Amino acid sequence: MDIAAAGDALAREAARFAALGWMRGTSGNLSVVVDIDPLRIAVTASGKDKGELTATDAVIVDATGRGVAPGGPKPSAEAVFHARIIELTGARAVVHVHHLGAVIAADRFPAGVRIEGLEMLKGIGRGAEDDVVTIPVIPNSQDMHELGDRLAKSYEAATPAVLIARHGLYVWGADLRQARHHTEIVAWVLDYVVQSGGTP
Amino acid sequence: MDIAAAGDALAREAARFAALGWMRGTSGNLSVVVDIDPLRIAVTASGKDKGELTATDAVIVDATGRGVAPGGPKPSAEAVFHARIIELTGARAVVHVHHLGAVIAADRFPAGVRIEGLEMLKGIGRGAEDDVVTIPVIPNSQDMHELGDRLAKSYEAATPAVLIARHGLYVWGADLRQARHHTEIVAWVLDYVVQSGGTP
Amino acid sequence: MDIAAAGDALAREAARFAALGWMRGTSGNLSVVVDIDPLRIAVTASGKDKGELTATDAVIVDATGRGVAPGGPKPSAEAVFHARIIELTGARAVVHVHHLGAVIAADRFPAGVRIEGLEMLKGIGRGAEDDVVTIPVIPNSQDMHELGDRLAKSYEAATPAVLIARHGLYVWGADLRQARHHTEIVAWVLDYVVQSGGTP
Amino acid sequence: MDIAAAGDALAREAARFAALGWMRGTSGNLSVVVDIDPLRIAVTASGKDKGELTATDAVIVDATGRGVAPGGPKPSAEAVFHARIIELTGARAVVHVHHLGAVIAADRFPAGVRIEGLEMLKGIGRGAEDDVVTIPVIPNSQDMHELGDRLAKSYEAATPAVLIARHGLYVWGADLRQARHHTEIVAWVLDYVVQSGGTP
Repeated sequence: MDIAAAGDALAREAARFAALGWMRGTSGNLSVVVDIDPLRIAVTASGKDKGELTATDAVIVDATGRGVAPGGPKPSAEAVFHARIIELTGARAVVHVHHLGAVIAADRFPAGVRIEGLEMLKGIGRGAEDDVVTIPVIPNSQDMHELGDRLAKSYEAATPAVLIARHGLYVWGADLRQARHHTEIVAWVLDYVVQSGGTP
Repeated sequence: MDIAAAGDALAREAARFAALGWMRGTSGNLSVVVDIDPLRIAVTASGKDKGELTATDAVIVDATGRGVAPGGPKPSAEAVFHARIIELTGARAVVHVHHLGAVIAADRFPAGVRIEGLEMLKGIGRGAEDDVVTIPVIPNSQDMHELGDRLAKSYEAATPAVLIARHGLYVWGADLRQARHHTEIVAWVLDYVVQSGGTP
Repeated sequence: MDIAAAGDALAREAARFAALGWMRGTSGNLSVVVDIDPLRIAVTASGKDKGELTATDAVIVDATGRGVAPGGPKPSAEAVFHARIIELTGARAVVHVHHLGAVIAADRFPAGVRIEGLEMLKGIGRGAEDDVVTIPVIPNSQDMHELGDRLAKSYEAATPAVLIARHGLYVWGADLRQARHHTEIVAWVLDYVVQSGGTP
Repeated sequence: MDIAAAGDALAREAARFAALGWMRGTSGNLSVVVDIDPLRIAVTASGKDKGELTATDAVIVDATGRGVAPGGPKPSAEAVFHARIIELTGARAVVHVHHLGAVIAADRFPAGVRIEGLEMLKGIGRGAEDDVVTIPVIPNSQDMHELGDRLAKSYEAATPAVLIARHGLYVWGADLRQARHHTEIVAWVLDYVVQSGGTP
């Protein structure tokens, strides 16, 4: 994928999530892998309205999340965490949104949101029966390396999502569209858990 | 109705339901009868974003829900259940959505959602007074024949809807527009039941 | 206002309310006075999707709510109640929506929703201080004359709204735009009452 | 910024907030500084649908909130309070919306909404850790000078928002886009506080 196409795709996806109310203010960020060797990731630029991005509002970072074009727009600090997710999981696209239900679910279930026997789980590649899914919850940190280490310890390879307490939701997939679908599914499941009012 | 017209109509309806948040990820599916003898049903293709379907994203299945054009796009596994609803009820269109209120209502009222004395019930052809409506709830299954047998035992001819526990909502009608209207009505009634907080 | 202009205005307003989720299925109806002497009222035709009305989907009724053009589209049964509101209150436009918060508020406060000391009340011409507003609640009926008599007994001249229990909300104004604004204000106030969780 | 550009910018921002349901009826108003010396502020005209403003629906007021063009459209009474916020805080743009969660939060926390340790607070320039934010709550008044005095006593320079009990939310920023982002962040935080169900 070339950089302009990646920027355009990120802008379109961001506008979708902004319209859902999951990227209020300038919150959240998205990324997509544009090259494998060496690894190059396009990440949305920080500080912009996610409903108004254009194809040029993406920054290219390397496998450590650092910008590779000095003098270009500043990558989000969270680019480091995006890169870590990609390294750990093999994902090609990552979505980070400040979904309200995700933050409330993380408050209620600080040891992880455990859920089983729900058809919707098939949408993230899991089973609707006899398959216990735990969406991990990790404490928030301003240190992206610390956050990455917490993820490394707690993530399940089969579950493409992690909740950061008092912060939001990260979800990933094999491409931007799959990451979008996984995000929508996980958000639905978390809303269900919260609105059902009990333990999941 | 010819196949291209059916595919186009299904895509338009799916985009409406996706915009309402009732077809998150690639969840849910819609169908419409295109021929009676022999029975041919157009069903939305599985695995696609329901907000982005086009006229060619429909699959034709027979009265058992099996695809009639080998090598074409794969019908949703749930096509078997759509076909069964059409056989049992005489409906010409079926809507299946993962409506959050439906799943929560099924959790609370596993023996069926019983409701009476509500003007909105006229929207599914029932009375606003002295007419007790029960929207049946059946346990989920990955076996569409088992699911169909459960529906056969519990559905009311006068109630064009069934809840599948931990899964979602099926609604039907004499054509796609009526199925849409029935779906909107049933979703409103279930939200009312859930948000009222008591027994319906 | 000529009839075509009235039909067009009703269609545009209906599409707004449908998009808000307040006219699910084919529920709800709108009316606007097109002539005073003799009184002629344009009312939305029944049985149509309120998001898809066109300028020709309006029916002209007289002061009793009966259609004046035999053979034309059927007026909603509720046209009789619209005409009664216009007669009683001098309104020139009436909005009827199945707003979920309205039905829940009517359940909780069957003797009327009493509210005081809320800035939003200025939006229906009342005071934000020292002005007790009661939005009346009347029992539902399928007899529009009975419903009209109930309204006649309970409505307050200064409050352009009535709740029909287990049914929905009627709101009126000096023209369609004011009726829209009154509807939005009353819906907000009722949502506030319901979500605040206590007595208003 | 010239007056026509200001009117256009205000109309666009108002349409965004109206679409979010935060400016129901004709409620709420926005302002932006167009000149510093002497101070001139463009404020949305009162009594208009905030989803339908045009570039000419703005009124220019001075540092006291009084219209400077006698005979032009009437400024909102609340223009006086907008001017006071600008004077006190140095803001260049002010947003006033009737956000439901804000009014409910003000009811629950009349001494101010205190919140700490939430990533979203970075969106209003505060810290996600070890930084206690209090969004002040002041009683409502119809006297804009009284309301301004209450704000002067309770506002925190580092917190660009105030809740008016039983009324709504004022938020400000260095320009209209920042005021929009601050508003979206504060609204999210208040929804979180309300939906979490406990003390923040």
